Amino acid sequence: MNENYFDYDVIVVGGGHSGSEAAAAAANMGAKTLLITMKLDAIGQMSCNPAIGGIGKGHIAREIDAMGGLMGRVTDRAGIQFRMLNRSKGPAVWGPRAQCDRAAYATAVREELEAIPNLYMRADMVTEVLTSEDGSTIEGVRTNLGQSFHAPAVILTTGTFSNGVIHVGEKNFGGGRMGESASRGITDCLHELGFESGRLKTGTPPRLDGRTIDYSVMREQPGDQDATSFSYMSDELPPVEDQLSCWLTDTTPEVHETLRTGFDRSPMFAGRIEAKGPRYCPSIEDKIDRFSEKNSHQIFIEPEGRHTDEVYVNGFSTSLPEDVQLEAIRKVPGLEDVHVLRPGYAIEYDFFPPYQIRYSLETKYVDGLFFAGQINGTTGYEEAGAQGLMAGINAVQKLRDEDPIILKRSEAYIGVLIDDLVAKGTDEPYRMFTSRAEHRILLRQDNADQRLTELGYRLGLASQERYDRMVEKQEAVKATRRALESTSVRPEQVNDYLEEQGTSAITQPGPVIQLVKRPQVDVDDLLRHAGIYDDVVTPTPGMLSASRLVEIDLKYEGYLDRQQQMVEKMEEKERWPIPEDFDYHELDTISKEAREKLDRIRPGNLGQASRISGVRASDVSVLMVLLKQKGVKPLPKERTISSHSDVSASGDGAPASADAVT
Amino acid sequence: MNENYFDYDVIVVGGGHSGSEAAAAAANMGAKTLLITMKLDAIGQMSCNPAIGGIGKGHIAREIDAMGGLMGRVTDRAGIQFRMLNRSKGPAVWGPRAQCDRAAYATAVREELEAIPNLYMRADMVTEVLTSEDGSTIEGVRTNLGQSFHAPAVILTTGTFSNGVIHVGEKNFGGGRMGESASRGITDCLHELGFESGRLKTGTPPRLDGRTIDYSVMREQPGDQDATSFSYMSDELPPVEDQLSCWLTDTTPEVHETLRTGFDRSPMFAGRIEAKGPRYCPSIEDKIDRFSEKNSHQIFIEPEGRHTDEVYVNGFSTSLPEDVQLEAIRKVPGLEDVHVLRPGYAIEYDFFPPYQIRYSLETKYVDGLFFAGQINGTTGYEEAGAQGLMAGINAVQKLRDEDPIILKRSEAYIGVLIDDLVAKGTDEPYRMFTSRAEHRILLRQDNADQRLTELGYRLGLASQERYDRMVEKQEAVKATRRALESTSVRPEQVNDYLEEQGTSAITQPGPVIQLVKRPQVDVDDLLRHAGIYDDVVTPTPGMLSASRLVEIDLKYEGYLDRQQQMVEKMEEKERWPIPEDFDYHELDTISKEAREKLDRIRPGNLGQASRISGVRASDVSVLMVLLKQKGVKPLPKERTISSHSDVSASGDGAPASADAVT
Repeated sequence: MNENYFDYDVIVVGGGHSGSEAAAAAANMGAKTLLITMKLDAIGQMSCNPAIGGIGKGHIAREIDAMGGLMGRVTDRAGIQFRMLNRSKGPAVWGPRAQCDRAAYATAVREELEAIPNLYMRADMVTEVLTSEDGSTIEGVRTNLGQSFHAPAVILTTGTFSNGVIHVGEKNFGGGRMGESASRGITDCLHELGFESGRLKTGTPPRLDGRTIDYSVMREQPGDQDATSFSYMSDELPPVEDQLSCWLTDTTPEVHETLRTGFDRSPMFAGRIEAKGPRYCPSIEDKIDRFSEKNSHQIFIEPEGRHTDEVYVNGFSTSLPEDVQLEAIRKVPGLEDVHVLRPGYAIEYDFFPPYQIRYSLETKYVDGLFFAGQINGTTGYEEAGAQGLMAGINAVQKLRDEDPIILKRSEAYIGVLIDDLVAKGTDEPYRMFTSRAEHRILLRQDNADQRLTELGYRLGLASQERYDRMVEKQEAVKATRRALESTSVRPEQVNDYLEEQGTSAITQPGPVIQLVKRPQVDVDDLLRHAGIYDDVVTPTPGMLSASRLVEIDLKYEGYLDRQQQMVEKMEEKERWPIPEDFDYHELDTISKEAREKLDRIRPGNLGQASRISGVRASDVSVLMVLLKQKGVKPLPKERTISSHSDVSASGDGAPASADAVT
Repeated sequence: MNENYFDYDVIVVGGGHSGSEAAAAAANMGAKTLLITMKLDAIGQMSCNPAIGGIGKGHIAREIDAMGGLMGRVTDRAGIQFRMLNRSKGPAVWGPRAQCDRAAYATAVREELEAIPNLYMRADMVTEVLTSEDGSTIEGVRTNLGQSFHAPAVILTTGTFSNGVIHVGEKNFGGGRMGESASRGITDCLHELGFESGRLKTGTPPRLDGRTIDYSVMREQPGDQDATSFSYMSDELPPVEDQLSCWLTDTTPEVHETLRTGFDRSPMFAGRIEAKGPRYCPSIEDKIDRFSEKNSHQIFIEPEGRHTDEVYVNGFSTSLPEDVQLEAIRKVPGLEDVHVLRPGYAIEYDFFPPYQIRYSLETKYVDGLFFAGQINGTTGYEEAGAQGLMAGINAVQKLRDEDPIILKRSEAYIGVLIDDLVAKGTDEPYRMFTSRAEHRILLRQDNADQRLTELGYRLGLASQERYDRMVEKQEAVKATRRALESTSVRPEQVNDYLEEQGTSAITQPGPVIQLVKRPQVDVDDLLRHAGIYDDVVTPTPGMLSASRLVEIDLKYEGYLDRQQQMVEKMEEKERWPIPEDFDYHELDTISKEAREKLDRIRPGNLGQASRISGVRASDVSVLMVLLKQKGVKPLPKERTISSHSDVSASGDGAPASADAVT
């Protein structure tokens, strides 16, 4: 019997979006990884909306892809409709979104995971985490089947399964998803180790039989004609005529009135659920309650796949009693005769408020134990995937005895996400928005590869091919920009087009780049009109065109420069490390609240400290004075301050992979 | 609110192989049908072996298809390897078998169901059956979510979910399948209605990571070059080079020795499971225990699908402690470094001994309540599907106020199955074998359409196209036979071939049909050798060739005739109806055992009575005398005696669909 069988480098608990990325990242970085999940068939399951991306979330999905994660590639494989949201606004807030085939998505995740050497799976329920006798260091997990598996790093991604309770009206019962068992044991175990847990709540809408819907009264929402892929590695998408449409309808005052009749039996309003739900993904009853002045809310009817008529009713999440759900939904135009395959429900589950984790996603109390996904209080596949990816990376960094990788707020939405969680905490499911990113003009969906692929490549996550494509793309952008600078157009080539766009004609030949800067001009339309597209635009690998990328740079040049300066200024504070054992109690010149929060969260540097709610600018100044007194020095500018371990490592040559972050 | 929403003609509880066929049959026959299942994603799930067919089972699958059921078409769609088993033996026992892509199979079942108008689905757990106040008549079901659905016919197909308990070694916990909740409530409800339940047990082998298997030491088992489809409606299969192989290896004395070390912790041997398991699908520990003289058992390594490396270890079902499973399996040649994705386990579940059902699968105690599948004590997808099909048909027949359809033992394996269950009962999971069918020369996999498609067509199940194909096939067979009779071959055309096959040459021209009758001759080889294949063989629709079908008829002509005579003789008893309220207690000239069993099972006719274990030929004679005394007359020869309701209907013109059975 091979002893080795029970010994791994990294154990990932849970096979959802977080667990899948964590396991893939750890194994791709060379760690012998075990993914334990209750049902292998449910790996990569989209529990709620069968869609990836959108505004903010689409950015995260691109970033995961840029680093070499799964989500982008899987979405391109399983997508049945691709759109770019927010195109009427600036490119910083464009968000790619794909409707996916739910079954195909799960199959593709599983297939991607199976393609990774070192990655082993097991269908089982983890009921216990194993630690050293004093509870300070993780040693492995024990399962429901009584087996112990050992590893110096364990990543928990329990999603909604940990002590999950499903609610529909006055009914409730245990379950991790409808029809699947809840998991038990882990929370008790973590309590014993000193962790504090809370309860959160999320919900899902009814699923409908598409055959019983009257689409003729709804507005069709087809895929985009010129959508781009989620992954920088994909070269094409299914043609738009092979994509499926979503459909829009609206609730009416009658629908709202009917829903109100169930409020007294609502598990939320009646107080049977005390946990908070996602503010920005509210149930229909929450929307009616909070926005009582609104007579109507949009409802999106979204296909669940190519091989089923099941549809998802986006915007109608509910845990009202089923009779009320049914009566109300049948008052929505187009749904008068609808058959409900499964009612909407709410689910309550355990989470661990994220002041208990570090920026690396390692917990503060147990060495080698990482949390990722809903367990940290987030909601959303993309938010979960991002944390899984970072936990997987940092578990391996730890095993390699290297610094954790901590993305900056100016570097990635993933950085914003984790910084928000750790520094600000959350007591309700946290969802990403572009508005959360103060540097969002830099963090665009089109440039995630330029921001992150080199790091992914150095970590051993992004492939050589991905790296080469990124370099090739950057060179194509440069070449295209040079061509735009050096190519002249004559008035007769472009004036028709310029006038059509409502911008002034030119009177003599001039470099085309000047025209591209005009806000009214679309670069590709202009170049095609002038008949010089092929001369000017260097083809890129993948689906983003060099001309479009140059256009964004040109049109936002001023903003981008200012943003970059802001980032540099703001990052000065990030360069001041705070020793992990810093005693905040001596800071009697700052408020008690700030002291307590600093002590609890233990920021790694002054920048992080400055973002903790309740910590004022003056508190940070006091802190800096104290650090200087203690002889702490700011790290050099080209070096990212990533964590406490940086402090102890200062003076050493920084390891290669940490260098890559800078 | 449409009241109608909660009212159906037929409600099917469970979405496995039995429930799917039941719902499809009922809805295809025009009944408004509701299928309630705990998880829509698990509809059509292959819980154990990802394969359909085999000997006996393949016959049933063909019969389900011939009637217009789902199984054959779904298998052809999802199959990844097709073979014909037992080809070295007579054609009566040839059995088609297909290895399937587990995920594709479930997707295809769901898609087929969604294509049926009148068929509605719901994800929920049925916890209660609703009856009239006196419990005599079904009225509907109530679910875990508190909803009541009404119908005059309810079909329960609870599979392994009803109070399911999973065992691995000394561990056990509730579950319907690994990771899925058990269902509860129904058994208690049925007890209150007077039903008696028992416990059965089944098991499943470990699932392995195919990437960790050394196939080089195993024997490859590819698909057949000339396999035929499962469905009479399919025109082609994936070419054999696109099919996946299975692999064979064997247990060794060391494997057995290791397994024995866990016997004291086996839930079976230690008595923690008292329920009986399937005798003909034993666990590896049972095989070792029962056949201790055998040093080795075959193990089949079977792929689970095109998009996964997961494999199924056919022949290694076990519920021994996991450490023992692992240690033992790693001693099997080729599995030395294998990674186990999920250990084998046993599952105990509730069943209802089938003396409580009629030949129509309706229960004896509650009017309109039907049982199908494992709830009746069977094992196997095909056995389950067959019962689901018949329960679906008979639920609708009842609603139509028409006689139930009861297939004869001489007509279908399905008839044998149900007759065995009702007349003989079972206290262990019942599995079909060709040896159970005394008329098996008539019940071939190649002629299920000739036996059953007309019936399916008249019932509104088999499509016009299916019926037309069957007629066209029969005509092609006749034409081919005529051509074989009228075509002469010269010695120089065939003698090479005949000598090669070790049969005597011919000396002068003669009708080719004489040669086809020779056992050594393969009809197609002969015709091709003689260069007359295309002249003689009329093409058939579908994948069975007319020449092969004629050959079977010719070679087995003698047997077939004798069998037909036997059937006619035996069926004389079937024509003697026994009134449902017959008082067996007056039969004091027969044994007490016979009286009790007759009273409990209440056979519909003398033939059925004669097959009850404990009822002797002399008892049947006594019974006949008594029936004659009571003025009962045998039904006319061309009329199938199908059930008690036939008796009350005698004198009426038999309804069209019952006619079809004869």
